[in-house]
Amino acid sequence: MNTSSFLGHEIPERLKKKEFSALSFVEHVLSDIQQRNRQYNIATRTLNQRAIEIARKIDSLIAQGKDPGPLAGIPFGIKDLFDVAGQITTAGSKILAQDTVAKTDATLVERLINAGAIPVAMTNMDEFAYGFATDNAHHGQTLNPHDAQCLAGGSSGGSAAGVAARFFPLSLGSDTNGSIRVPASLCGVWGLRATQGRLPTTGSYPFVHSLDTVGPFADSASSLKLCFEALSASPLQKIDTSTLRFARLGGWFTENMAPEMETAIAQLAKTLKAEHSITVPETERARAAAFLISASEGASLHFEHLKYHAVDFDPAVRDRLFAGALIPTTTIAKAHRFRSWFRRAMHSAFETVDILIAPAVVGPAPRFDQPFININGEMVSARANLGIYTQPLTLAGFPVLTVPIPTQGLPLGAQLIAKPGREDQLLAIGEDLERSGNAKANLLSA
Amino acid sequence: MNTSSFLGHEIPERLKKKEFSALSFVEHVLSDIQQRNRQYNIATRTLNQRAIEIARKIDSLIAQGKDPGPLAGIPFGIKDLFDVAGQITTAGSKILAQDTVAKTDATLVERLINAGAIPVAMTNMDEFAYGFATDNAHHGQTLNPHDAQCLAGGSSGGSAAGVAARFFPLSLGSDTNGSIRVPASLCGVWGLRATQGRLPTTGSYPFVHSLDTVGPFADSASSLKLCFEALSASPLQKIDTSTLRFARLGGWFTENMAPEMETAIAQLAKTLKAEHSITVPETERARAAAFLISASEGASLHFEHLKYHAVDFDPAVRDRLFAGALIPTTTIAKAHRFRSWFRRAMHSAFETVDILIAPAVVGPAPRFDQPFININGEMVSARANLGIYTQPLTLAGFPVLTVPIPTQGLPLGAQLIAKPGREDQLLAIGEDLERSGNAKANLLSA
Repeated sequence: MNTSSFLGHEIPERLKKKEFSALSFVEHVLSDIQQRNRQYNIATRTLNQRAIEIARKIDSLIAQGKDPGPLAGIPFGIKDLFDVAGQITTAGSKILAQDTVAKTDATLVERLINAGAIPVAMTNMDEFAYGFATDNAHHGQTLNPHDAQCLAGGSSGGSAAGVAARFFPLSLGSDTNGSIRVPASLCGVWGLRATQGRLPTTGSYPFVHSLDTVGPFADSASSLKLCFEALSASPLQKIDTSTLRFARLGGWFTENMAPEMETAIAQLAKTLKAEHSITVPETERARAAAFLISASEGASLHFEHLKYHAVDFDPAVRDRLFAGALIPTTTIAKAHRFRSWFRRAMHSAFETVDILIAPAVVGPAPRFDQPFININGEMVSARANLGIYTQPLTLAGFPVLTVPIPTQGLPLGAQLIAKPGREDQLLAIGEDLERSGNAKANLLSA
Repeated sequence: MNTSSFLGHEIPERLKKKEFSALSFVEHVLSDIQQRNRQYNIATRTLNQRAIEIARKIDSLIAQGKDPGPLAGIPFGIKDLFDVAGQITTAGSKILAQDTVAKTDATLVERLINAGAIPVAMTNMDEFAYGFATDNAHHGQTLNPHDAQCLAGGSSGGSAAGVAARFFPLSLGSDTNGSIRVPASLCGVWGLRATQGRLPTTGSYPFVHSLDTVGPFADSASSLKLCFEALSASPLQKIDTSTLRFARLGGWFTENMAPEMETAIAQLAKTLKAEHSITVPETERARAAAFLISASEGASLHFEHLKYHAVDFDPAVRDRLFAGALIPTTTIAKAHRFRSWFRRAMHSAFETVDILIAPAVVGPAPRFDQPFININGEMVSARANLGIYTQPLTLAGFPVLTVPIPTQGLPLGAQLIAKPGREDQLLAIGEDLERSGNAKANLLSA
């Protein structure tokens, strides 16, 4: 049995056909993670006992002829800010590392388990989800599976890299300013930021209440769709994608791209028959507003920690939170007012199209020894700035699918943006693109 | 010709069949408003010159065999916070009454005119849209067309009463905390609060940037649908309403109802096969958060006016804005964080249903000599509290259709709430209910 040679969405069928048992499969997965993790630093813990217990239950259901669920037997990774019963939720920090263990699973974890999926590992992240690098002061850096010299992206880098490295076909992350979309793009996997508020955050450690979302990574569009149906607790409508109207996002979203990203986006736009561009005004200001709200709400969340345990923070996180604590609340009130204005501007953009296309990041993963990106001719920190195309969209709260574009070199991802609530359209397009070979997760060969 | 005897959506067809000209029709409408306005105090100005000019253009298009637009010849009223070229936008205040005239039409006004509709009057409102009574210190009270002893509701009371009194079949209002839904319910007409941000507010005088929406009233579900297609600049998808799942909103939305409203909502729920209730937690807190954000952002908007022209405000508005100016910004930051939480709670409620049903107000219109409503056994100001069922929904930003329920006595309205962006579902249900006689605008007989 070479379980790594097939995709997540194929597993339930193969289990039901008794090609293998859930137990033998998950034991294989756990030992594989144990062996290969030192190469990439993806998992901070494996969840052996829990995984084996759930696998046994699935095997028993199958033996009794009962339905083991739509995700039966699919292993998944969990960013270490979701509660898992019996585990300490550290949010990648030293400060929470001595907390009490969680009594119950976070809602999204629970929903995946109820659908038959098997939690196998907690994954590495930027401390308190504040960063785009998965460069953790306590757990170390997660390496990009496609080039160990390069960043995996963050803050949900362990969850993205784990899918790319075939540790698990599905994983959970969170996306406040781009923490799903950035690592999905740099690692070459599918990722979804759902409509703001659509997926329950219960049992996940917060960062920025006004912007936080939680969501999935996957190894195929079909796996992602199955997973989203479980996470959202509602089946998706069938979508006739031939009626959808596409356009590229112009202005801000066309500046600063590396040449290979320019080519990839142009090719995707051509495939999707996006013949014109729409420019949403004040995109740069939208990014600024998201920055300000993040720093300020983050600081307010961690205020007591900053007062009494400043020394225990990752220095890069601490300094940004200190700065956030000093932003006048009147400035934040202004950012919230601007947010409503910008949301309306996004709605206006969607009056003539259904789907907008934009790059997810400026280009391929930066190297650890050159952790910078070029924005308007200036080299700036990748950790703080990889979200230049994701952050403005965060402010509007519209759903965004990250699509892995087939490349010769390192992975590149695009963002497809839909109207609020239209994840059904995004996932249908994802499956179309996958079927036609115009999108495909970049996974390590088995 | 008795032009008041047919509904808005019938007008374009009748015009095209040359039953009458747009000019003769609009002249009739304008003189009718002139005559009957003193009874109800609905219009603050008529727009004779502009209306006649547009009517002539429509007649000329028809004469040339060209398409005069989907709303051709339908007269509409405009809440006096939308810009109309050549008019001063007063927002119902003395302070703006000496402003310069608007150079261009507000986007929604422009879209209706481009679709062939004819603006005929500016309508009365609570000063700066802050109130649920259309009790204006400068222009007087708007009387409910169904009982002149009763409130029309507010703040878009003139626009709602104008439809009920058959001054015009369509009108524009704004809804920050319920200013479309409350007067639609008390006057017995259709009203729509679209998804937060979906309709452009350009050229409308703001109140609370984070909560403001603008939208239509109509004399029939079909008129409303035609109107919304023009306002949103996109055609609506066809909806199979038989697949939609309905439930009642429980908890907060079942308390404090007058007996006739209880009966009406129960009947509507039965018609729509809503067999269970869903309770969204912390609804009361959601109302409080909307209150706080409104008072604070309103005060911030009017800060200079409050400093230098306090005496020119309606005292009831001034006192609430002063109170709003004193709310600490940290409290507002908290309200914004709670808003995200509450939006997620609303999304969770929608995991098992498509449409939620709730009353729009506690009961029929209060009397001017008893402008109070009973909340939890206490008699409180109707002007400030008529929005108890509308305000919490405002905070979440989901779309809400106000449905006029057929009654023996004064009008009663229900709220139908859908997921973000699903105005298409709401309007399809509205047409179903109208067709089956389970909803119908209560219009003065011609």
